[in-house]
Amino acid sequence: MIIRRTASLLLAPLLLGAASPDPAPAVPSPSEIVAAAPAGDWVDIAPSDLLLIDVKTGRDGTGRIVIQLLPAPFSQGWVGNIRRLAAAHWWDATSINRVQDDYVVQWGDASEKKPVPAGLAVVPQSGYEQAYDPAMFDRWWIGGHDLPAPYVAKGHLPAPTPPAPIVADPYAQYYAFSGGFAFGVSARQSATSTEQRLAPDRVWPLHCYAMVGVGRDLPPDAGTGAELYAVIGHAPRQLDRNIALVGRVVSGIERLSSLPRGTGPLGFYETAGERVPIVSVRLASDLPEGERPHLQYLSTDSASFARYAAARANRRDPFYLRPAGGVDICNVPVPVRKRP
Amino acid sequence: MIIRRTASLLLAPLLLGAASPDPAPAVPSPSEIVAAAPAGDWVDIAPSDLLLIDVKTGRDGTGRIVIQLLPAPFSQGWVGNIRRLAAAHWWDATSINRVQDDYVVQWGDASEKKPVPAGLAVVPQSGYEQAYDPAMFDRWWIGGHDLPAPYVAKGHLPAPTPPAPIVADPYAQYYAFSGGFAFGVSARQSATSTEQRLAPDRVWPLHCYAMVGVGRDLPPDAGTGAELYAVIGHAPRQLDRNIALVGRVVSGIERLSSLPRGTGPLGFYETAGERVPIVSVRLASDLPEGERPHLQYLSTDSASFARYAAARANRRDPFYLRPAGGVDICNVPVPVRKRP
Repeated sequence: MIIRRTASLLLAPLLLGAASPDPAPAVPSPSEIVAAAPAGDWVDIAPSDLLLIDVKTGRDGTGRIVIQLLPAPFSQGWVGNIRRLAAAHWWDATSINRVQDDYVVQWGDASEKKPVPAGLAVVPQSGYEQAYDPAMFDRWWIGGHDLPAPYVAKGHLPAPTPPAPIVADPYAQYYAFSGGFAFGVSARQSATSTEQRLAPDRVWPLHCYAMVGVGRDLPPDAGTGAELYAVIGHAPRQLDRNIALVGRVVSGIERLSSLPRGTGPLGFYETAGERVPIVSVRLASDLPEGERPHLQYLSTDSASFARYAAARANRRDPFYLRPAGGVDICNVPVPVRKRP
Repeated sequence: MIIRRTASLLLAPLLLGAASPDPAPAVPSPSEIVAAAPAGDWVDIAPSDLLLIDVKTGRDGTGRIVIQLLPAPFSQGWVGNIRRLAAAHWWDATSINRVQDDYVVQWGDASEKKPVPAGLAVVPQSGYEQAYDPAMFDRWWIGGHDLPAPYVAKGHLPAPTPPAPIVADPYAQYYAFSGGFAFGVSARQSATSTEQRLAPDRVWPLHCYAMVGVGRDLPPDAGTGAELYAVIGHAPRQLDRNIALVGRVVSGIERLSSLPRGTGPLGFYETAGERVPIVSVRLASDLPEGERPHLQYLSTDSASFARYAAARANRRDPFYLRPAGGVDICNVPVPVRKRP
């Protein structure tokens, strides 16, 4: 086995970031930290933010994929279109038409001729990112520099100087979490200070595994949300800010990622018989209470999340010999569970 | 569609890294650059470095997965064991036993009782990485700082100062390619110079998509190579230098990545009936010439590869509005093709 987990490790003391005595006591794995998180660290996802896609696959019969929609203010033009398309039952009897290995699964109207409801928003390229808003900060957790010791930034960010950020890559200067999602954050020199301070500038969601976006043709405003895709491979971060993201698959991603790959260009299925029928797409809030899924995400403001993220960056559970000392932001997926 | 490619773009001029006139002419996508690479930029993979796994899946009948083994000096203890196991037909009638979404597919002897051939090497933890050897350099291509303008480092590396590296993450200081694979490189202050120079120190392969590694229990030398896994999700780079890598799936990864996910702990299949039978595992060199696959990788020393990598870091084909200006090393997979 690659990873061995022992239940008794849950009882072991936490030593996150601290110098380990010799021999180092066992410390919990990220999933053990999540399993031990108290009820108060979990946040219910509103039924109006859950999009339920029921598909018919040869392998499993009918199965459900659940998408958590991005919270305001992100991508709300497209998210609003998606709510209208679901309310109009527009996707019923459409299909999954494209499965490209290590990239995306894409669904919508295979004929590309089905008219969409009148009045869908046309969202310009500027909708791919948001201006930073200080009001965002109370519920944000900035992970650019100090993942093991999170802090709420008070209007400025530390300059990107050594020691190296624990989360670093060429795609963004900083990262933050909010509402169950990770975001990239750019920064600019603060105009109001002569000190070496950086002010958060633009904020955008990230193309990590299981993220859901809006297919489009060449014009940046061409996508309505009727054509959607989900990431099923290594994070294609080059798409960040080049296409709209609208949510994340929080349940059933394996129903998409295990589909047969399409053999046509870009992984499109070459015959109608290969397409995967979509039975219905609904918001959970449009279903009777008894039929709704009840999902929760681990609050990114919580101590449990901080511990989880630190453990992702520095695996000290017994299998690991050499903690990395850092982590790719897409290797810190926000944990989701069924409400107990 | 997420990405639209037009064949006529192949004729457009290259403008990699140059300031674009307004309006910018269309430039090729990474796959168009690869398609246009001259024959001399492709390197045959030796049949003795290709491991062929024939499996029986419910969906496709019998299918083949091809793994390119890591070149010397990397992981050669385990690679040698794998050659012996294949020669002994040890994997015949074993199975794929684990498929964990966004992580790995794992195969070997489900009973964990089948004896391995006598005399397999026991490789210590030190085998997870190699000391940098200056002789490596002639065929290395250091991509830490100047992916668009590659150079062969002459015994030293540029210090990690601004401008930011085009390839950067928290897992390694530098990256290099050799023999069709990407490697992480650590650096230390050069002892022979008072200048700000860094000397390459340790070198190790990376857990990118489709990489193949050696399952093990807790002791770092516990894995023989009989139990193997392939990465089928976002790169689990936390495993780098914590477990041995031995190669990369260069053909047929979709046969692994599209398998049903296991429902047991860690994605293990819960019943024998779910396991995917392995019919045979052979080195291509052990097959008659007429039955061998003939594969090539794009030389990482070639101008085509430099152009390809630069295009991965700065998409300027028409779909893209905002080139990233950098790239995750695992988003620069070395292209492989059938020999024409």
